[in-house]
Amino acid sequence: MAIPKGRENKRNGTCVTSIDVAALAGVSQAAVSRAFTPGAPIAADTRKRILEAAQKLKYVPNSIASSLTTRRTNMVAVILGNMNNPFYMKVFKCLAARLQAQGRQILTFTVDTGASSDDALMRVLRYQVDGIILTSAQLSTRMTALCHERGIPLVLLNRYVPSAETPSVCSDNSGGGRMIAEAFLRAGARRFAVVKGDPFGTTSQDRLSGFLAGLFEAGITRNHILELEGNAVYEGARNAVFQAFRDGNQPVPDAIFGINDAMAMGVMDALRGMLNICVPEDVMVAGFDDIEEGARWPYRLTTVRQPVETMVDKAIALLKLDTKPGAVDTGICIDHKIPCQLIWRDTVRLTEQN
Amino acid sequence: MAIPKGRENKRNGTCVTSIDVAALAGVSQAAVSRAFTPGAPIAADTRKRILEAAQKLKYVPNSIASSLTTRRTNMVAVILGNMNNPFYMKVFKCLAARLQAQGRQILTFTVDTGASSDDALMRVLRYQVDGIILTSAQLSTRMTALCHERGIPLVLLNRYVPSAETPSVCSDNSGGGRMIAEAFLRAGARRFAVVKGDPFGTTSQDRLSGFLAGLFEAGITRNHILELEGNAVYEGARNAVFQAFRDGNQPVPDAIFGINDAMAMGVMDALRGMLNICVPEDVMVAGFDDIEEGARWPYRLTTVRQPVETMVDKAIALLKLDTKPGAVDTGICIDHKIPCQLIWRDTVRLTEQN
Repeated sequence: MAIPKGRENKRNGTCVTSIDVAALAGVSQAAVSRAFTPGAPIAADTRKRILEAAQKLKYVPNSIASSLTTRRTNMVAVILGNMNNPFYMKVFKCLAARLQAQGRQILTFTVDTGASSDDALMRVLRYQVDGIILTSAQLSTRMTALCHERGIPLVLLNRYVPSAETPSVCSDNSGGGRMIAEAFLRAGARRFAVVKGDPFGTTSQDRLSGFLAGLFEAGITRNHILELEGNAVYEGARNAVFQAFRDGNQPVPDAIFGINDAMAMGVMDALRGMLNICVPEDVMVAGFDDIEEGARWPYRLTTVRQPVETMVDKAIALLKLDTKPGAVDTGICIDHKIPCQLIWRDTVRLTEQN
Repeated sequence: MAIPKGRENKRNGTCVTSIDVAALAGVSQAAVSRAFTPGAPIAADTRKRILEAAQKLKYVPNSIASSLTTRRTNMVAVILGNMNNPFYMKVFKCLAARLQAQGRQILTFTVDTGASSDDALMRVLRYQVDGIILTSAQLSTRMTALCHERGIPLVLLNRYVPSAETPSVCSDNSGGGRMIAEAFLRAGARRFAVVKGDPFGTTSQDRLSGFLAGLFEAGITRNHILELEGNAVYEGARNAVFQAFRDGNQPVPDAIFGINDAMAMGVMDALRGMLNICVPEDVMVAGFDDIEEGARWPYRLTTVRQPVETMVDKAIALLKLDTKPGAVDTGICIDHKIPCQLIWRDTVRLTEQN
C-alpha cells in the first residue's frame, strides 16, 4: 500500500481521520469503525489490512471526537470507598477486565471510608461518562436525582440505599450472616463476638442482622454476644480484639465473626500473634467475602463467598450501556439476593453434623 | 437569590453554563471557574455563594467542554501491569489520592503480566488524556514516539526502557538487591536461592543483578545460587519453592530472596505451610517493596522499602501537567536511584554485626 500524497500524519497526529484510513485500506468508513470496536463483526484479514493502514498513517480513533456523534465516551466512572479492603480491589480488577473487553475504560474516583459519595458524584458529573458504578456507602437522594436528570445511569454495587429506588446489586448478605451463625452453633459455640464494619454500609448491617437473627433463634441472648467496632479494615479489627481481651479484661468468646475477610484476618492475627490464643481450638473465627489472602496457608479462613463475577456482570448490565443514550428507563432493578456460598476451611471446628 | 427566568435547568441539565452561575452569584465567570478548581485562590464566602448558585441551577462544570478551550481534560491514564501484586495497588491508591487532590482523575488501563503495553497505549490514545503513567513492563519505541508526536507526556513508574530516553522513575533496585545479599551474608548464609519476577521487567532484573553482585563479591559462586521462576506473583513463588524442595529433591538453601514481597510471602507459605521448614531458623527469607501485608504477624518479613510516595510525586511532576499543553519539552528526566531502606523484621537472623 502506498500512502496517498498529503495524507501523511501531521505533527500532532490528529488530522488523520477514518476516511483516510478507509481510502488507503480500500474499505468503507464503517469498516474502519468496526475494526476498532471490540467484538464488532469484521473479517480477520479486513481488520488486519485496516490496522496496517492505520499504523502507516498513525491513525488513532478518538473517543472524544466520536462521542460528539454517538454521545458515548466509552468511559464508566467507578467510585471506590474502602481501597484498603482487598475485596474492593478484586471487584475493581473484575470491573476493569469486563469493561475493557467491551472497549470501555474506568475513570476512578475515591472516597474516604464512611464519607459521603456526594462530592465524588459532583466531580464525576464534570466528565461525560456513560455510567457510574458506586461501591462506597453514603449517598444523598439529591445526588441520585441529579444523575437521573442528566440521563447518566447509576448503579450501586455491594450496597443499596434503603427506601430509595436506585438500581443496585448485592449478594444475600443477611443469608450469609445466618450461615456463619449456624456453622458456629453446630460447632458448639455459645458465646460470641462480632467485629462490625462501616456503620453506614448496608452490607455490614445486613450481615450483622442475619448473624444475630440466627443466634437469637437458637436461644442465644444479647448478653452472650459482644459487638466490637472494626471500621471495615484489618487494623481496626486487630486492634479492637487485642484491646477487648488483653490482660484477661473479659472472657474470650467461643467464636468471633469478622464482618469481612480483611477484618477476620485481623482478628486471627490479634488472637494468635498478640494474645497467644489458638484458632480454632480456643476460639473459632469466620469471615465474609472469600478474598484470596484469606484462603492462604497462615489463615485458611472459613468464610462466605460472594460471587464477584456474577455481581459485576449484573451491575454492568443494569447500566444498560448499549441502549440509546438519553432513553429514559423507568424500570428499577434491585437485586439483593444473589446467593452466597459457605466455604469451609480450618477456622471453624468440624463436627459430625458439619 | 432568585433564579432568573428561563435559567432553570433543562431536562438533561447541560444547558446551564458558568455565565448563568456567575450572573446569579453576582461574580465574574472567572470566579466560577476558580470555585470549581481545587487549590485555586478564592475567598471562602465567595466560593460558598457560587456553590449555592450552582446547586440552585443544577450547574456542574464540564471538563470535556472546558477542554475545548483549555486543551486539558484533567484525566491521566494509568496503565497497570500486575494487579495481583499488592504493591501496584499501593501505587495506584497513592496516584489516585495525589491526582484527585489536584482535580484530576485516573483513567485505568490494564495489561496482562508480561504482555506488551503497546495495545493499551493505542487504546489510551483514543481518549484525550493529559498524560500517561505506565507501570507495566514491555513497550516499543514506536509507541513512545507516537505519544511524543501527539504531545502527550508519558512517564514510566517503577521501570524503564533500557537504551531509550523515556522519562522514568525507579528506586535504587540494584542497591536494594545488594542490601539483601549483605544481610544474608552477615547472618551466615552460604547457599542461596532467588525467586525471580517478570523476565522483561527492569525492576526484577536490577534487583537480581544487585543481589548477585553482592554475593559474587563475597566469593559465592554460581553453583551455590539457585534461580527459580516466580512470575512476579504469590502463587508462582509458592509453587516454585514447593516443587524445588519437595520430597528432598535437592538441599534447601540457607536463604531465599523473593524479588518482591508478594513472592517472598509465597516462599514463606511454601516453606512453613507445605514443607514444614521453619523461618528463619532453617531458612531465611527476604523480600522487596515493603507492602503492608508482609509486615503483619504471620510474616514479619525483612524487606527493602520502596519510597512509594516519593516515587509517585516524582512521576506526576515529570508529566509537567501544569505547563502549557503542546509545549515540546526536550529535557529527558530519568531518576533510577531513589534511595531504598532495609527494613529489619523477623525473617533474617540477627547477628552481632546486624
